[in-house]
Amino acid sequence: MEGALQRQSEERDSGIMTTQPSADEVSHLAVDIGGSLIKLVYSSIDPNDGLDDKGKKSSEEFSRVPNDNNDYPVLCGRLHFAKFETSKINDCLEFISSKQLHRRGRWHHEASGQDKDIIKATGGGAYRFADLFKEKLGVSLDKVDEMDCLVSGVNFLLNAVHPEAFTYIDGREEYVQIDHNDLYPYLLVNIGSGVSMIKVDGDGKFERVSGTSIGGGTFWGLGRLLTKCKSFDELLEMSHNGNNRVIDMLVGDIYGGMDYTKIGLTSTAIASSFGKAVSENKELGDYSPEDISRSLLRMISNNVGQISYLNALRFGLKRIFFGGFFIRGHAYTMDTISVAVHFWSKGEAKAMFLKHEGFLGALGAFMSYETHGLDGKITA
Amino acid sequence: MEGALQRQSEERDSGIMTTQPSADEVSHLAVDIGGSLIKLVYSSIDPNDGLDDKGKKSSEEFSRVPNDNNDYPVLCGRLHFAKFETSKINDCLEFISSKQLHRRGRWHHEASGQDKDIIKATGGGAYRFADLFKEKLGVSLDKVDEMDCLVSGVNFLLNAVHPEAFTYIDGREEYVQIDHNDLYPYLLVNIGSGVSMIKVDGDGKFERVSGTSIGGGTFWGLGRLLTKCKSFDELLEMSHNGNNRVIDMLVGDIYGGMDYTKIGLTSTAIASSFGKAVSENKELGDYSPEDISRSLLRMISNNVGQISYLNALRFGLKRIFFGGFFIRGHAYTMDTISVAVHFWSKGEAKAMFLKHEGFLGALGAFMSYETHGLDGKITA
Repeated sequence: MEGALQRQSEERDSGIMTTQPSADEVSHLAVDIGGSLIKLVYSSIDPNDGLDDKGKKSSEEFSRVPNDNNDYPVLCGRLHFAKFETSKINDCLEFISSKQLHRRGRWHHEASGQDKDIIKATGGGAYRFADLFKEKLGVSLDKVDEMDCLVSGVNFLLNAVHPEAFTYIDGREEYVQIDHNDLYPYLLVNIGSGVSMIKVDGDGKFERVSGTSIGGGTFWGLGRLLTKCKSFDELLEMSHNGNNRVIDMLVGDIYGGMDYTKIGLTSTAIASSFGKAVSENKELGDYSPEDISRSLLRMISNNVGQISYLNALRFGLKRIFFGGFFIRGHAYTMDTISVAVHFWSKGEAKAMFLKHEGFLGALGAFMSYETHGLDGKITA
Repeated sequence: MEGALQRQSEERDSGIMTTQPSADEVSHLAVDIGGSLIKLVYSSIDPNDGLDDKGKKSSEEFSRVPNDNNDYPVLCGRLHFAKFETSKINDCLEFISSKQLHRRGRWHHEASGQDKDIIKATGGGAYRFADLFKEKLGVSLDKVDEMDCLVSGVNFLLNAVHPEAFTYIDGREEYVQIDHNDLYPYLLVNIGSGVSMIKVDGDGKFERVSGTSIGGGTFWGLGRLLTKCKSFDELLEMSHNGNNRVIDMLVGDIYGGMDYTKIGLTSTAIASSFGKAVSENKELGDYSPEDISRSLLRMISNNVGQISYLNALRFGLKRIFFGGFFIRGHAYTMDTISVAVHFWSKGEAKAMFLKHEGFLGALGAFMSYETHGLDGKITA
């Protein structure tokens, strides 16, 4: 069962050490149950947590969390991250149960007289699956607002973890030193199944100002229908080798290979995403899944970048942080978003990315425990 | 051949009469060759133009141009509209040839000493297909800038034709009396294969401020791949009977049927377009083409509405006119765009539509003839 579980989940040490836990700062579990994915964050004081029988990480795929070198015992607490597809929530429940993650804070809660078995939970699934958690694990979900969690998760990362934020320009990640006195306001764009855009003015001070339904769920959903891919990661992987020009209608396709210089559009700019597919000469099966994936990824990343920029402009925000599981540290995604923000802002605004992008909400939920053990002394 | 041609084209009287043509104001032809469609505008002084052998319109499908009552002889000039798919440009050339449309202005041009056979042409295809027009019809395309044409076409319609502009709210078209002293500035959103957004400050005074590659070509292209539809109109027709909730992930799907009231999202709001398709239980063939078409139409219309609003906001524009062949007078499209503009602007901005939506560029090209015969005395 463990093997089956691990094929369907990704579990990974975060690279973030918590402070040395005291008896009052034992490990916790927090969950963020979104439309497509469940994200888990849990802390441990067991140096072997997150390692398999051979002392290696249980999944090598989740390469976004850096400093993946937990093949040594750690003396202080550690954060672990894991994810499951929401449609496979039973696997997630079995994972929690097998590791007894929901019991971790028990004696603390007993000591403080609180409800014995509660788990901090955010995302819509905290409502949708509350009964299931109660029935299968005997725990209550203590619901924490999704936007609150996203913001506190990002603020924690930006304030306490370095390096965390980076720009992605011309294929190069460049870490950004955050000046805490000049951090706010910023725009947080969380690309989950859908996309939320949040203007953040300080700790707990924020407003969700916009969003779009064209997000990670659109990429995965449309991508599945068009390519028969088996997973989000397979779809993303395919895009590496794709060429969007096969399906997208470029300015040059309309203008006979020429630029439309008067309005600043080069011949290679995309005039119409999937516009070449109107041709009657080709059916779905005639296009390669790789090319389809690439066009889809570019369409969505570019659109998110554009709407984000327009919202940043509206509120005079120079910094836009992009998070959410859609990004997955994928070079082409970050490149498209960066280029879109640069293009539309004429270089005025800057797209920034986060190392722990996929776990913002779960981290925020984790931090809503009164004694979460994460303070300023973080190494990543 | 005529029959075959007419199945592939749509030719329709515009309902716009030109002023009584003099010897110097003979009929003209102008073309707008876009990425997916070729639009033709031509004037005639022959009362039988546009009628087939039985005195009926050659196509009954193109119901967007109102006052379709040209089954009587007209004494003054008339504008005719026709469209072809760009991929079937040879049909278009044969249509022009069979009606000798390219010869219409000939003796005028001879008299004025201009190049004998020129056609005013706009859109990228004016560049791409210039050689083909020369080879097949022996005419030169006199290229007119696409944005110039869109703007002059709309300004002409808004100033000279009434009723032309209308709002679409709760399923009802309501014509808007345009106050010419309070028309500018406005945002023109032309939804062709791609989308252009133009801030218009007056006659010939404008700037293309934004756009998106998610437009009509995306609807048609993705729609073809997903539903195997044979035409844009079939795809649009299918959306009538579709239900987007089958494939879109709603807020309620994530939140267990609940609203996410804190941020003002109802349970029926779309959280993620096509987000339900991530489910492994269903393949493409398990979804109805109608539902797919509906989700696609809503995704694109909503996105265009949102980006348009953000640009209108940026420049303080209260009026947004939507044109382009994507709309096709389709109730659900106009409703989605109207709702999007209303939702994002909190009722501050208003979406307006145009009766001659699909022919803005072609009309503008037509008007670039020095003697186009369209002046203020227009009946529609």
